[in-house]
Amino acid sequence: MSSFSRVFFLASIFTGIYIWQCLPSVAVGSQPSAEQPNRDQPANVVIIFADDMGYGDIASWGHPTINTPHLDRMAADGQKWTSFYVAASVCTPSRAGLMTGRLPIRSGMCSNTRRVLFPDSAGGLPPDEVTIAEVLSQRGYATACVGKWHLGHLPQYLPIRQGFDQYFGMPYSNDMDRVASAPPGRQAFLEPRISYWNAPLMRNEEVIERPADQTTLTQRYTEEAIRFIHANRHRPFFLYLAHSLPHVPLFRSSGFVDHSRHGLYGDVIEEIDWSVGEILTTLRELGLAKNTWVVFTSDNGPWLTFQEQGGSAGLLRNGKGSTWEGGMRVPCVMWWPGRIPAGTVIRDMGSTLDILPTATHLAGAELPQDRVLDGYDISPAMFGTGPSPRNQMFFYRGVQIYAVRLGPYKAHFITEEAYGSNTNRQVHETPLLFNVEVDPSEQWNVASTHPKVIDEIRNLMARHRAELQPGEPQLEKRIP
Amino acid sequence: MSSFSRVFFLASIFTGIYIWQCLPSVAVGSQPSAEQPNRDQPANVVIIFADDMGYGDIASWGHPTINTPHLDRMAADGQKWTSFYVAASVCTPSRAGLMTGRLPIRSGMCSNTRRVLFPDSAGGLPPDEVTIAEVLSQRGYATACVGKWHLGHLPQYLPIRQGFDQYFGMPYSNDMDRVASAPPGRQAFLEPRISYWNAPLMRNEEVIERPADQTTLTQRYTEEAIRFIHANRHRPFFLYLAHSLPHVPLFRSSGFVDHSRHGLYGDVIEEIDWSVGEILTTLRELGLAKNTWVVFTSDNGPWLTFQEQGGSAGLLRNGKGSTWEGGMRVPCVMWWPGRIPAGTVIRDMGSTLDILPTATHLAGAELPQDRVLDGYDISPAMFGTGPSPRNQMFFYRGVQIYAVRLGPYKAHFITEEAYGSNTNRQVHETPLLFNVEVDPSEQWNVASTHPKVIDEIRNLMARHRAELQPGEPQLEKRIP
Repeated sequence: MSSFSRVFFLASIFTGIYIWQCLPSVAVGSQPSAEQPNRDQPANVVIIFADDMGYGDIASWGHPTINTPHLDRMAADGQKWTSFYVAASVCTPSRAGLMTGRLPIRSGMCSNTRRVLFPDSAGGLPPDEVTIAEVLSQRGYATACVGKWHLGHLPQYLPIRQGFDQYFGMPYSNDMDRVASAPPGRQAFLEPRISYWNAPLMRNEEVIERPADQTTLTQRYTEEAIRFIHANRHRPFFLYLAHSLPHVPLFRSSGFVDHSRHGLYGDVIEEIDWSVGEILTTLRELGLAKNTWVVFTSDNGPWLTFQEQGGSAGLLRNGKGSTWEGGMRVPCVMWWPGRIPAGTVIRDMGSTLDILPTATHLAGAELPQDRVLDGYDISPAMFGTGPSPRNQMFFYRGVQIYAVRLGPYKAHFITEEAYGSNTNRQVHETPLLFNVEVDPSEQWNVASTHPKVIDEIRNLMARHRAELQPGEPQLEKRIP
Repeated sequence: MSSFSRVFFLASIFTGIYIWQCLPSVAVGSQPSAEQPNRDQPANVVIIFADDMGYGDIASWGHPTINTPHLDRMAADGQKWTSFYVAASVCTPSRAGLMTGRLPIRSGMCSNTRRVLFPDSAGGLPPDEVTIAEVLSQRGYATACVGKWHLGHLPQYLPIRQGFDQYFGMPYSNDMDRVASAPPGRQAFLEPRISYWNAPLMRNEEVIERPADQTTLTQRYTEEAIRFIHANRHRPFFLYLAHSLPHVPLFRSSGFVDHSRHGLYGDVIEEIDWSVGEILTTLRELGLAKNTWVVFTSDNGPWLTFQEQGGSAGLLRNGKGSTWEGGMRVPCVMWWPGRIPAGTVIRDMGSTLDILPTATHLAGAELPQDRVLDGYDISPAMFGTGPSPRNQMFFYRGVQIYAVRLGPYKAHFITEEAYGSNTNRQVHETPLLFNVEVDPSEQWNVASTHPKVIDEIRNLMARHRAELQPGEPQLEKRIP
């Protein structure tokens, strides 16, 4: 059995400890024709990642005043995943999970004290972690990272050391490197100016602009991405386009000033929506659409404490920083004309953790076999040939498990509001239990009537903890 | 100037008291071809009205687990109105507003003490009110009311006395006439049985089934509606299909039991979605789609106190019974292949109050000229030829104005939660002010920075009160 004719997936959570199994691909999907990767022309992979965009921030996901015709069209021609989770509710660990297909605790990329990397951080995604870019590089893909990285800004951690051929973007969040002369507190965000943040823009390993002109970031990221697509139109490619926005401070180019009825935040989303349209149009014009898997999603929920400068989690509870659904369930649109059935909705679970295994399968590449992965190949659900293999999700905050979802049930062992002054942390001896398919807003605790579900979830946690080997903590490391 | 070449609309709220003006129709829209009603073949009008369905209960409005392919398709082929309001946040006054194009206080169909009509009520919509059915009857329309009426169940108030040629449905809510032997409190709703409610099903003026078999109501309403469409395929018709559901108690037919991932409430919505598909398919099959204006909306927000048996207001605040957005902003989808631009979203305001004037215009009929109307002809916005003429909305609870929206701003003079044990009623000397285009969830009071807006809204209220002539109160009248 050749390497690419196998698919790897995690054994059912009900059968015990996580192990890798090798099975013929026919075991996963019933229609091999829709499942088999193309040996000669591996699929291109494009991930468009927004920063702090909420579940409710797209028109076709229920926002009344933000106008997102390109994302709406992408969903109409593609597929919405309505129960799609990120690996953590803040930037750095979420991105570590996406890039490795592993819970961030395995790479040491989460912490209870410093929740993300800061400009004084000395840590980063360990070089021995295997990224999507590294997996796809094995198969001859051209790879580009455009936008926010936030997995380490010292040279040894930058994208071009992690499997990417090229990098253009900001190495961490756009609100970092705030200058001393900026207005205090939130005031700097109300009328943001470029000069308030001394954030760098890099090309490969060099800082090319500082402070970065954030008003044109979305435009320039988009142009860079399109150039990359053009340059690699005749070979397989992986593009990771990670917008710095709508993370505060909010900036948009002159063409998007007062563009939205939703104010500044709406302007920013509408410019990102424009960018999505540019990418998809480029793929269509170059005849690449039918061989490119595009995923649009966000790194975590909306930063609610920024009020009208933050997004909306829609009907979900809470936002960024919390393990309530609003913090970790994000909008996700997948698009692949001719392969993904148009206008479909997948209500099964999916996760950014699943992107690496799925891309690996689509590319006919090999998964790393010397480590535990937390992701699944979700292509059967995507192509409409079977259910999603994902039936559970761990909700970490820092290095602690706060909640676990198993099937439709989510148990909260610890609850805490998003980061802020009063987070109201509560430990629950008997967990709160919500059926998030019936109660996506997590309002009606059904723990008392579902003791067996709680037992199953406790067992699942115990098995997870027994096999877990946390990585060396990276986020506490500081430049001396 | 012939009667139908005129359009009537309310003078701008900024010019003072409401008066009727007659202007050539070209004044409303810039493209007469899209605006002019067809003299020879007046448009059919179909209103599909759900009961207690929330802003967030449709997949393409952001619900993660309720599956509504027919409503989604209707929106994709038609138009979403994302800022569409009902005339009141509970059944009876909301329906009075829809049927007359007038705020319910003008017809006496609202009250601070009895919020809707009950089986012992002796009042109803006064016969001298002019309904949509009466207006369209003037132009030779066949008219049918199918479903819940709730505008008076004594003979003189039934639909066939209010301009409808025929009636089939329940005269009031499906949770009324609860029998003494039913389980107490909410228990009856948890596992509802037909026998718990002795609610009648009527044809014209006769009770034909009691208790009504509510499990097949949605099916039978749909069949009745389709029979009516078939019978009137060669003449203009007005169909008012007012589902009794998803008002509690929740029932669905055998084909929809366990149909939804969202549980019983999801089953019910998915059966209503099926019904929408049946209606639209019938119109298409009979070649009537291109001459029929279909509006799908709800009578008020979700009944949140019923928890998992109530719907979701999505990102909006609160629900049925309150004047927060969740109580009075409802999903609205309009559909008219070839006339309404497909896949469009109207973010201007609209209201069920506007349906009568719009239908009147489309039919080339005459508006009643001896009374104040509160609705506008919104066809310019619908056809994409101009903005919506609606720039304000009054939010009544009972006979009191609780809130007023003017442009993007909504001022709350009184706030109160949905009906329940603790409604936390508060009178605000300085109103709370929200920009509901930027802040649709009504979270961030901007009153202190917008005193002029508050002045304008106070002036608008004063003008409204000065011209208002409340109708004789109907809801307190009881059968002796």
